[in-house]
Amino acid sequence: MGGDFGPIVTVPAVLNSLKLHPQLNVVLFGDEEKLSAELTKYPSVASNRLRIEHAPESVLMDESPKQALRGKKKSSMRLAINALKEGQVDACVSAGNTGALMATARFVLKTIPGIDRPAILSAFPTMGGTARVLDLGANVDCTTEQLFQFAVMGSVLATAMDAIDKPRVGLLNIGEEEIKGNKQVKDAAIKLNRNPYINYIGFVEGSDIYSGKADVIVCDGFVGNIALKASEGMAKMISYYIRKAFSETWYAKLGAFFSYKALKRIGMRLDPRRYNGASLLGLKGIVIKSHGSADVYAYATAIEQALKEIELNLPKRIAERVELIMSEEAKYV
Amino acid sequence: MGGDFGPIVTVPAVLNSLKLHPQLNVVLFGDEEKLSAELTKYPSVASNRLRIEHAPESVLMDESPKQALRGKKKSSMRLAINALKEGQVDACVSAGNTGALMATARFVLKTIPGIDRPAILSAFPTMGGTARVLDLGANVDCTTEQLFQFAVMGSVLATAMDAIDKPRVGLLNIGEEEIKGNKQVKDAAIKLNRNPYINYIGFVEGSDIYSGKADVIVCDGFVGNIALKASEGMAKMISYYIRKAFSETWYAKLGAFFSYKALKRIGMRLDPRRYNGASLLGLKGIVIKSHGSADVYAYATAIEQALKEIELNLPKRIAERVELIMSEEAKYV
Repeated sequence: MGGDFGPIVTVPAVLNSLKLHPQLNVVLFGDEEKLSAELTKYPSVASNRLRIEHAPESVLMDESPKQALRGKKKSSMRLAINALKEGQVDACVSAGNTGALMATARFVLKTIPGIDRPAILSAFPTMGGTARVLDLGANVDCTTEQLFQFAVMGSVLATAMDAIDKPRVGLLNIGEEEIKGNKQVKDAAIKLNRNPYINYIGFVEGSDIYSGKADVIVCDGFVGNIALKASEGMAKMISYYIRKAFSETWYAKLGAFFSYKALKRIGMRLDPRRYNGASLLGLKGIVIKSHGSADVYAYATAIEQALKEIELNLPKRIAERVELIMSEEAKYV
Repeated sequence: MGGDFGPIVTVPAVLNSLKLHPQLNVVLFGDEEKLSAELTKYPSVASNRLRIEHAPESVLMDESPKQALRGKKKSSMRLAINALKEGQVDACVSAGNTGALMATARFVLKTIPGIDRPAILSAFPTMGGTARVLDLGANVDCTTEQLFQFAVMGSVLATAMDAIDKPRVGLLNIGEEEIKGNKQVKDAAIKLNRNPYINYIGFVEGSDIYSGKADVIVCDGFVGNIALKASEGMAKMISYYIRKAFSETWYAKLGAFFSYKALKRIGMRLDPRRYNGASLLGLKGIVIKSHGSADVYAYATAIEQALKEIELNLPKRIAERVELIMSEEAKYV
């Protein structure tokens, strides 16, 4: 039910995914009437692998996590996460209210032992390939310990998803020199430096999110969210000025004609929809957050992310790695 | 002496500015021998408006602010700021070590009454015009009070520089809802909301740095620095992929030929060199920080910024406004 568009987007996205993955089964949690009405638009539905679980409520986009958690116990979001907890489904995908999703998932599923708070991780295109950045907004203030845990989780995900043996982990800071940054970041650097199971490459700067210098970039959720959105804003502005420039002169219009395919390729390479589907890492279960403004293609990408994490059994991998690394850490305490 | 290139850049930039501004007088602080050698490369020097003040030391780019402040009392940076303090010059421009420049300026010049710590402000291109963002890295952790002071200073600068009567001031946050963000940001919002002398428009997100929604955007130095560099990184990546795409096919090369002028116009519009020259606001004196990697054109832009602030008598304007606003604030305490 969530996101800016609700079932108009989520239903066709699910149907596309069902076509693509014959082993996939989907339960749609939400208003049965609305979901059924949407489904009737598509006659060739793989109905034996799709069912609706009616939810009488849904969490609004501007509700506080507390309101959602306490007041909406029969929301589509809550019922979906309950089903995940009870093992009826293997992963949960939502385009709904991020704060509410995080709070509900944390309350119902609980975190993996050794993880204080879950983090939101997403993939970013770089000049070399892909970087994974966390946290993107789940935790506004982070302790040293949390930053360290994010590094461990990001590392496991990069190894599992991108088959990188020793992912390069960088800590986001305002300079590369050891003297720079706030206390949490400096202390996290000490912990990461001494741990043999993490390939820590040192401080990285904001520009390194896109430079390809690191496979995993760790920061608190306030900084991560703003870095992500600031660069989105920059990309939008550049694209605005490119479109404007290409329509200004006859000569430029000709240029646009010949450049069309090349520019389209860049658009596809950097298309944020290709990177949709952020992982809520550190939970005892797979929860994927789609962007609220996702269209059918983007929402299907979020479902792909859920499928990959199921295949890789990501929460179990993280739990094992956390246990190993924490026992290493215990030597220093 | 500062920056990545030293006198090779600063000397010709100064000579260009002297040509452009007949009323300008410049004192070059630094190694006399090196500066003289550089000056001899340019025969037509306006020598009556330019003199060298020998400094036996210079602050290195990787020195800590403490080292610079205590150990380099005869550095070019220190002598220039001393001269500003003593009224021998009206403004100081440096491409040197930012932390050292900030610490030295603060120690020698002191802050304006009512301002706890200076902030670094820079202009950014937006879809509409220009936005001023502060702090960009002087203060890694900021109190509510400091964020409020940044809003006041940014407001004064936008009014003076851009002739905006009531600059729209936004607080950088991870969402526009009142419930979001950390404690400092939420409390600063309360203070800004109730003050009739500030046109506070509420929380803005990272993407709004470039959207044109606000004239002044306030954040702590850690967040501001990373937002700035993340978007620089995004811009670099886009430009990398555009160049790549334009060289891949014969068709795209033709497109590049016809688009050349249009793309060049965008490049000029968004050229970071046009925005070089960050203001160290809140000091009893005008100090402008040029980017370390500035070329001659960019460094001359930083000198322009200094000239504008002298003309506008910016520190005095800030002091007056701070006094007025603080007396308003006192009503609430």
